[in-house]
Amino acid sequence: MGNTFGHLFRITTWGESHGDAIGVVVDGCPPQLKIDATAIQAELNRRRPGQSYLTTPRQESDAVQILSGVFEGQTLGTPISMLVWNKDAKPSAYKHLKDIYRPSHADFAYRQKYGIHNWQGGGRASARETIGRVAAGAIAKQILREQCGTEILAYVKQIQTIAADVDSDKVTLDAIESSIVRCPDYEASEQMERRIDEARRDGDSLGGIIESVSRNVPIGLGEPVFDKLKADLGKAMMSLPATMGFQIGSGFEGVTMTGAQHNDLFYTDKGRIRTRTNNSGGTQGGISNGENIRLQVAFKPTATIRKEQETVDIHGNPVVLSARGRHDPCVLPRAVSIVEAMVSLVLVDHFLRQRAKKFE
Amino acid sequence: MGNTFGHLFRITTWGESHGDAIGVVVDGCPPQLKIDATAIQAELNRRRPGQSYLTTPRQESDAVQILSGVFEGQTLGTPISMLVWNKDAKPSAYKHLKDIYRPSHADFAYRQKYGIHNWQGGGRASARETIGRVAAGAIAKQILREQCGTEILAYVKQIQTIAADVDSDKVTLDAIESSIVRCPDYEASEQMERRIDEARRDGDSLGGIIESVSRNVPIGLGEPVFDKLKADLGKAMMSLPATMGFQIGSGFEGVTMTGAQHNDLFYTDKGRIRTRTNNSGGTQGGISNGENIRLQVAFKPTATIRKEQETVDIHGNPVVLSARGRHDPCVLPRAVSIVEAMVSLVLVDHFLRQRAKKFE
Amino acid sequence: MGNTFGHLFRITTWGESHGDAIGVVVDGCPPQLKIDATAIQAELNRRRPGQSYLTTPRQESDAVQILSGVFEGQTLGTPISMLVWNKDAKPSAYKHLKDIYRPSHADFAYRQKYGIHNWQGGGRASARETIGRVAAGAIAKQILREQCGTEILAYVKQIQTIAADVDSDKVTLDAIESSIVRCPDYEASEQMERRIDEARRDGDSLGGIIESVSRNVPIGLGEPVFDKLKADLGKAMMSLPATMGFQIGSGFEGVTMTGAQHNDLFYTDKGRIRTRTNNSGGTQGGISNGENIRLQVAFKPTATIRKEQETVDIHGNPVVLSARGRHDPCVLPRAVSIVEAMVSLVLVDHFLRQRAKKFE
Amino acid sequence: MGNTFGHLFRITTWGESHGDAIGVVVDGCPPQLKIDATAIQAELNRRRPGQSYLTTPRQESDAVQILSGVFEGQTLGTPISMLVWNKDAKPSAYKHLKDIYRPSHADFAYRQKYGIHNWQGGGRASARETIGRVAAGAIAKQILREQCGTEILAYVKQIQTIAADVDSDKVTLDAIESSIVRCPDYEASEQMERRIDEARRDGDSLGGIIESVSRNVPIGLGEPVFDKLKADLGKAMMSLPATMGFQIGSGFEGVTMTGAQHNDLFYTDKGRIRTRTNNSGGTQGGISNGENIRLQVAFKPTATIRKEQETVDIHGNPVVLSARGRHDPCVLPRAVSIVEAMVSLVLVDHFLRQRAKKFE
Repeated sequence: MGNTFGHLFRITTWGESHGDAIGVVVDGCPPQLKIDATAIQAELNRRRPGQSYLTTPRQESDAVQILSGVFEGQTLGTPISMLVWNKDAKPSAYKHLKDIYRPSHADFAYRQKYGIHNWQGGGRASARETIGRVAAGAIAKQILREQCGTEILAYVKQIQTIAADVDSDKVTLDAIESSIVRCPDYEASEQMERRIDEARRDGDSLGGIIESVSRNVPIGLGEPVFDKLKADLGKAMMSLPATMGFQIGSGFEGVTMTGAQHNDLFYTDKGRIRTRTNNSGGTQGGISNGENIRLQVAFKPTATIRKEQETVDIHGNPVVLSARGRHDPCVLPRAVSIVEAMVSLVLVDHFLRQRAKKFE
Repeated sequence: MGNTFGHLFRITTWGESHGDAIGVVVDGCPPQLKIDATAIQAELNRRRPGQSYLTTPRQESDAVQILSGVFEGQTLGTPISMLVWNKDAKPSAYKHLKDIYRPSHADFAYRQKYGIHNWQGGGRASARETIGRVAAGAIAKQILREQCGTEILAYVKQIQTIAADVDSDKVTLDAIESSIVRCPDYEASEQMERRIDEARRDGDSLGGIIESVSRNVPIGLGEPVFDKLKADLGKAMMSLPATMGFQIGSGFEGVTMTGAQHNDLFYTDKGRIRTRTNNSGGTQGGISNGENIRLQVAFKPTATIRKEQETVDIHGNPVVLSARGRHDPCVLPRAVSIVEAMVSLVLVDHFLRQRAKKFE
Repeated sequence: MGNTFGHLFRITTWGESHGDAIGVVVDGCPPQLKIDATAIQAELNRRRPGQSYLTTPRQESDAVQILSGVFEGQTLGTPISMLVWNKDAKPSAYKHLKDIYRPSHADFAYRQKYGIHNWQGGGRASARETIGRVAAGAIAKQILREQCGTEILAYVKQIQTIAADVDSDKVTLDAIESSIVRCPDYEASEQMERRIDEARRDGDSLGGIIESVSRNVPIGLGEPVFDKLKADLGKAMMSLPATMGFQIGSGFEGVTMTGAQHNDLFYTDKGRIRTRTNNSGGTQGGISNGENIRLQVAFKPTATIRKEQETVDIHGNPVVLSARGRHDPCVLPRAVSIVEAMVSLVLVDHFLRQRAKKFE
Repeated sequence: MGNTFGHLFRITTWGESHGDAIGVVVDGCPPQLKIDATAIQAELNRRRPGQSYLTTPRQESDAVQILSGVFEGQTLGTPISMLVWNKDAKPSAYKHLKDIYRPSHADFAYRQKYGIHNWQGGGRASARETIGRVAAGAIAKQILREQCGTEILAYVKQIQTIAADVDSDKVTLDAIESSIVRCPDYEASEQMERRIDEARRDGDSLGGIIESVSRNVPIGLGEPVFDKLKADLGKAMMSLPATMGFQIGSGFEGVTMTGAQHNDLFYTDKGRIRTRTNNSGGTQGGISNGENIRLQVAFKPTATIRKEQETVDIHGNPVVLSARGRHDPCVLPRAVSIVEAMVSLVLVDHFLRQRAKKFE
């Protein structure tokens, strides 16, 4: 309970970081969709560890295997089961952590909740869990692109104190992918790269902000009052490991404006009603209004560092922890693909929900 | 679809702002709970319009009526249906808005989605919809208080550019309620009052930030990976009208720290494992860890203002809109009760979910 | 939890038999539907007590009140809240039953489960609970009729040992409604009437079988593997008070046939693929195949009788119970409308689910 | 959508008959349960093809593989992913059926619904889909046995016209398993065996009735009004391939009794309130009352036969079909394990739901 997301396009993920495999079941994918396994793999490759010197060196090809739901290259309308085998699982590398609560990790909370926890690299709480989300998100993205021409992008907007300057209305996938940190502002990108490398050598870690923009979103997505589009986007982002905040449109900064400044005035542009500004971030009343959906997600600095830290063991005795081995100084460059996946999953679910109700 | 919230403690709200009534059905409330109708009414009174000169003058007593699920003062375990009759509904007062899309209101999006919209004061998109949430939240709050000693508070942390200084670990309900704007920092409170009054006379509106703290939360609430506690809290807040952002613990500011600075070190305090700092905001791995749950919600300035605005009608023709009559310059003082209600609903739902699974 | 039914067309019912009111919230009804309140009332009138000398004499007009979701005669796409006030509630008439477990009633089970039970006429376990289902079902029926030309009928097929002979492919609403017991086989109908009247005078009660047929059902409804159409129909029927069995197509009798006898052979009829027989009852693989959906529901004899019965009180002491006052010797004539409502609710939900997925 | 079952103990199944694998994800299993993989395999072996000369000769060991959720022999509280590889998949053996609608199979309905169908041995509509249910049901059964001492059995009650005489209160697993057709009435069992063998040689198939009894069921399971225990049991059974009917307690036969005959009188037995008869079948008001839960399920004769049949191809042209190769004359002996699994899944889900609400 708690491992299923979506109402009509529904995913269920499973798997621990150092177990046999990680996977997802996608239920509710429309039939007769030409599934492009290459496209799914391409998204997984953007999430994969070891793609640059800045990230965790864990060696995983993350090759996706489709076990059901696809027949002669097309979806059947039945559940699509996908999995990735863990190849570089090294559970023994975590043995010294077996009885220790790592600061700001999930160990303590899991053990309190379940009375047991998988101490092997975070178990279910590992970011490796997001593999299933990304694989499912690739299918969602494809449906939206083919059916609505929707384009969903995400990029690194800020690393620690280095903020990028990006025009969300114009940014391209190419510009994002050509930066090693997936920040399409090249000057900022270089600074970020250096800052992350410093943290890496330092045994420390960094957080930041990922921004996402969705263009050509159909008008009318979102189901008030609880399943507002912004609510489901918020839940999607806050369900990711390490996220500490979510904002849409003007977000937290918008609170300093007055209503007269903040309101998005309507006008008619070539027969289409649009808004002059987009402080609303693409939704009003919880429903997409056809403007670009712009949102931001705050990621805390990764909890795993190689510096010494004071903590306690499971009996409450003080211990000093020094993480050995692998260490990912900043997850944001890889998390970009995860944010895109979650946006895609929310949008496709609401797209299907809206189709059910609209009689013409 | 979209008007139900919760998995085991489940509420379904209904009603339009100027329809006959507004209500809620609470399904899944445990039996034999002594329901205190006075307590429900007290919460509704904190949300009620007209409670001070700073808010909308709509005259509503918002007197709650319990129609089912309670028998001889106790809950039966069957659905609790509650409603509030709309007394001061003035649909005709909105007739001039019938064909106009008000800027940053839900009119346009609703009409695009549904092909029809109730132009009477926002219809379902009105903040009046939250009455059902507050009534249900009062019951949730009572369960948590009686079963776990949990205390759930919210208060105004910022109005436009005026930020308050509040110690979330120590703030009291009395301190909050003794401020007309529900800000327990008295200096800030006075400035906020003046600023809101200015906006009121100006025909303009203000937004701000509400902060909430929950103390004595049971450890172990939250169901990874999608129904993490922070994810359901995020959804709850982003499902409210006018919210543009959500953050927990260190939130967006935490991104400027490094891992070594941000990690919450564990220590043992009188036999109980705790953290020295609480950048995590009371949850780790998506599960409550026993520390106070501290979160913030950004509210945009209310879309209804009395200044002239350029917009279009439903045919796309430009019109100039000047709102007449009622106008609520700042909803935050009233929204405090709504934020508390949503926190309560999320926590009680996860409290029940956790009970189901814990074998001892 | 447990008082909501449906996935896209979702109803939540509430209310106790002798409480203030009984109601339903319909969430997910498509917008711009012209709601015919008269049609809703007409269905409620078919369910209403006191409509003939054969039924309970409780005096209730069961006049439906629509409180939300409808605006200028059309659905808004927002929740439709409907209620019926209990006028002839006589809780005091049940006072002598306060501490007694009536045989085959829900009193004992409710009290064991909840630690409390509403002893006033069955409380939530009363068949009066179905008012909300019938009101919501009337809307569902209207959608199916308008969008697909689907016709949904039910009628009494058997009362105790008297079985009717009805051609389900040709039976009409008029034929059903012209029988006081809603059995369109007039000979059987007369016998049934006499048998029920005997039971009434005897202080005893009767059960029987209701058959339902749906014609012009769209092909493709049902979501394998768990939400098969027959599965959701089965749940719908078994969720009614007093039902003990459900069968579709050949049902329990079909087990005596061999595969060669039972299989429905396909053929082409004016360009449309059909089956020569309909042992499948209109669904194959859990999906509607365009043939008539024919199902049967077994109702036990009503538990309330006026004969003396041995039982125990809540302390386990033996007592002799003689029900006084009101007594409904056979609910089937009224239950016909409830069965139709439940079929309608299942079909409309799957109709909307199917719309969401079918790209053309 | 439609491949998930359960509210707190939730299973999602996936896989086609001749795809790579068949599997299930179990979400919501309580933590720290010692998972007995042998017990899971034992249940799968009872469902496995090829276990006797009476069944399909498909060669499958159905060896279960647990991929997640179990750590050092105990459940983690995270999703348990289990799969079985299809070893004897022979998709090419079905090539001649590619364009043909087999009578009373799901081919036609699937193709109409999805625009595509997997013609390889039924694809998703194959009974092979139930592997995931049985594997998950084995875990559910274990929880109920360990936590409540509940025993859940099913057996063949009738094959075609041969009805067995079984005392459901006393029947044992050993008695069931010692019969090749899983009918604990040895005389009937022998007749059934002969009858099935005749059908096998004849190329024909047989249906029948499976009865299930659950003993030591906790009182209080079931969530009125829609999630009544009998309703969820009904859905569970009707969600199986080939089921045409469900009844509980007195079922369809009970309709011939009067209320005075049918009512189950309460009495006190050694301090425990019980009923003298059990026409209610173990539930009253939709809630378990502590008596044995007795239910029956009607299975139609299997649609696959080796006799010639007239049908049409996907273009509507008449063709004559003669099934070659494999043929299972009667699925009931194997289906016994599936019925037990579904009962277990329903009971464990309601057991967890009840735990959530009961404050003591």
